[in-house]
Amino acid sequence: MLSEFQFLENLHRKYSLQKIGDDCAVLPKDSKTDLVITTDLLVEDIDFRLDWSTAKFIGHKSLAVSLSDVAAMGAKPVWSMISVGVPEKIWRTDFVDGFYEGYMNLAKKFGVELVGGDVSKTPDKIVIDSIAAGEVKKGKAILRSGAKPGDFIFVTGNLGGAAAGLKLLENGEKFENSEHKPLLLRQLAPNPQIEIGRILGEKNLATAMIDLSDGVSSDLAHLCRKSRTGAKFFRDKIPIESKILDFKSAAEDEIVFALEGGEDFELLFTVNPKKIFQLEKSIEKGQISRVGEITANTEIVELITDKQSRILEPKGFRHF
Amino acid sequence: MLSEFQFLENLHRKYSLQKIGDDCAVLPKDSKTDLVITTDLLVEDIDFRLDWSTAKFIGHKSLAVSLSDVAAMGAKPVWSMISVGVPEKIWRTDFVDGFYEGYMNLAKKFGVELVGGDVSKTPDKIVIDSIAAGEVKKGKAILRSGAKPGDFIFVTGNLGGAAAGLKLLENGEKFENSEHKPLLLRQLAPNPQIEIGRILGEKNLATAMIDLSDGVSSDLAHLCRKSRTGAKFFRDKIPIESKILDFKSAAEDEIVFALEGGEDFELLFTVNPKKIFQLEKSIEKGQISRVGEITANTEIVELITDKQSRILEPKGFRHF
Repeated sequence: MLSEFQFLENLHRKYSLQKIGDDCAVLPKDSKTDLVITTDLLVEDIDFRLDWSTAKFIGHKSLAVSLSDVAAMGAKPVWSMISVGVPEKIWRTDFVDGFYEGYMNLAKKFGVELVGGDVSKTPDKIVIDSIAAGEVKKGKAILRSGAKPGDFIFVTGNLGGAAAGLKLLENGEKFENSEHKPLLLRQLAPNPQIEIGRILGEKNLATAMIDLSDGVSSDLAHLCRKSRTGAKFFRDKIPIESKILDFKSAAEDEIVFALEGGEDFELLFTVNPKKIFQLEKSIEKGQISRVGEITANTEIVELITDKQSRILEPKGFRHF
Repeated sequence: MLSEFQFLENLHRKYSLQKIGDDCAVLPKDSKTDLVITTDLLVEDIDFRLDWSTAKFIGHKSLAVSLSDVAAMGAKPVWSMISVGVPEKIWRTDFVDGFYEGYMNLAKKFGVELVGGDVSKTPDKIVIDSIAAGEVKKGKAILRSGAKPGDFIFVTGNLGGAAAGLKLLENGEKFENSEHKPLLLRQLAPNPQIEIGRILGEKNLATAMIDLSDGVSSDLAHLCRKSRTGAKFFRDKIPIESKILDFKSAAEDEIVFALEGGEDFELLFTVNPKKIFQLEKSIEKGQISRVGEITANTEIVELITDKQSRILEPKGFRHF
C-alpha cells in the first residue's frame, strides 16, 4: 500500500504540480506581496473525539492547525474559510455554536477574517475542512527546501506535550477534573507560533521552516528531503515539555513523546550561522532552542546522545 | 431546528462577517484585480454515492461545483485546492487515482492550477472539500445583491436534467448500460458555465448572478433576498431539458424537475434592459434564455402560467 507521502509525490510528478509539497502554496498577490494558502481536513475519531474534547476546543484547533502552516511560511495570517459537515443529531445540539465560538476567538486573537465556508450534512461523523491564507513579502516565503549544510536547527517552545496529552486522554483522563490540564490543552487547543513565524519571515532570518504536526522525526525528515540535506540533532538540547515528567511511567522515555509525538504545532527552522546574532536580537530568549545542525548527508537524520550517534527513522503520525 | 440558511445568517450577524453570503468571497488582489474564492464540502451518501458514480465522475464533480461558484461571480477560475478523506479500504483501491484523473481533466480544460490540498483517513465515508479561486476586474465581481426592479432574468442552458438524472439513479438505473446517459451525466459530471460567467463579468453585463445548485425556486429566492427585490418568471420561458420527456411518468410534471431539482450548475443572472442588445451580441443565441423579470415585491417570487400567477415557495435542496 502506498503511503500518503509517496502518493502525493507521485501525483506531484504525474500532473507537474509545482506548488504542492510545502506547508502552504505560495501564489503571487501583488507587486510586493505573495499569498500563502493551506487546507487541512479534520475528521471525527481520526483527528479529534467528542468524548475527549469540547466544541470550542475543536473550533480552536481547526483554525490553529492551518494558522500553524501559515506561520511555517514566515507569513502573517490574514483570512480563513471553514467548511463543517455534521450529522443531523449534532446539528440539533449547540455543537456548531460552540465550534464557531472557539474558532472565532482564535481568529480574533490573530486578526484573521473569516471570509467563507460551507455547511453540510454527513451521515454519521463530523468533518471539518480548514483553510487559512497569509501574506508574506514577495519571494520571501520560507520554504522547506532552503536549508544548507552548516545551518543551525532551531525549534520554538517545548516538545512532546501534545503527544503526552493524547496519551492521557487515551488512558481515560477527563479534561474537567484533570490535574494535567496544561498537557491536555497542548493536545486539545494548540497555540500556533504566529508571532515567531512572522518575525522570521519579515526579517529574512530562516533558510527553511516546517511546522511540527507529524512529529520532529518525521517533520525534520520532510525538511531534509526537500532541502536535499541531512541533519544531526542533540538529545540534550531538545526542549522536552517538563510537565511530561509528572505523569509518565518509569518505563517510558520522555524523548519519544518529543520525537515521535505529533501535533505540537511548534516551528522547526534552520538559520545560517551568520544570522544567529540577529536572530537572538529579534526573538526573546527562552522562546526558541538550538537543537542541531544541517549536514550534507542527504536524507540522513542523526540523533546524538552522549557522543553516540544513531540514525533516526521517521516515526511520526501518518494516515496511510 | 434552525435551517442552514438561518444559521449562516445568524453567524453572519453575530461575528459581523462582511464577506460571507455570496457564491464566493471577494478579496482584494492587486490594484486591478479581485480574487474570488469558494469552498464546497461533498460527503459520500449525501452528495454522491459510490454505487451510482465512478471515481472519475466524483473527481470531476468536486471541481465542477466550485468552478460554478467562481463562474457565478463573473470571474475566470485560476487555481484550486482539494482535500480528500477516505477510509483505508478505499485507499487500497484505485479510487484516489481515478478521482484525481477526473479532477485534473476538468482542471486542465479550464486552465486551473491545482496548488494544494490534504489527504486524510476517515473512519467510514469519503469526504471531499473543494476550493477554487478566480480573478475578476477590481470591483466588478457580480454579486447576488445587485438586481434592480425591471431587470430581466436569464438562465444558461437547460434546467431539470440533473434532478431527472438523480431520479433515474434512485430508481436503479446504471450508467454503463443506460439509454439515458446524457441525463445521468448532468447529475454525475456537470459542466460549469465558465465561459458565459467570464463574459458577463468582463463586459459588465449582469447586475446580479447566482449558480443553480439548490434549484431555481431556492436560488432565485436567495438572489431576491440579497437584492431586496422580488421576481416573476414565466413557466413557458423556462428552458426545460427536453430529454426529461423521454422517461418521466405521465403523473410527473417536468417543470418540477426544473424548478425544484438542484445541481444543474447553470447560471441565473439579471440584466438591465438597456444592456440586452450588448448581451445578445456577446453570447451566442441558444445558450441563454430570458425567463422573467425582477420586481419591487420584496422576496416574493411569482411563477406565471397562462396569465395566472402563483407565489413560488423555495423548495430546493437543503441539508438542514
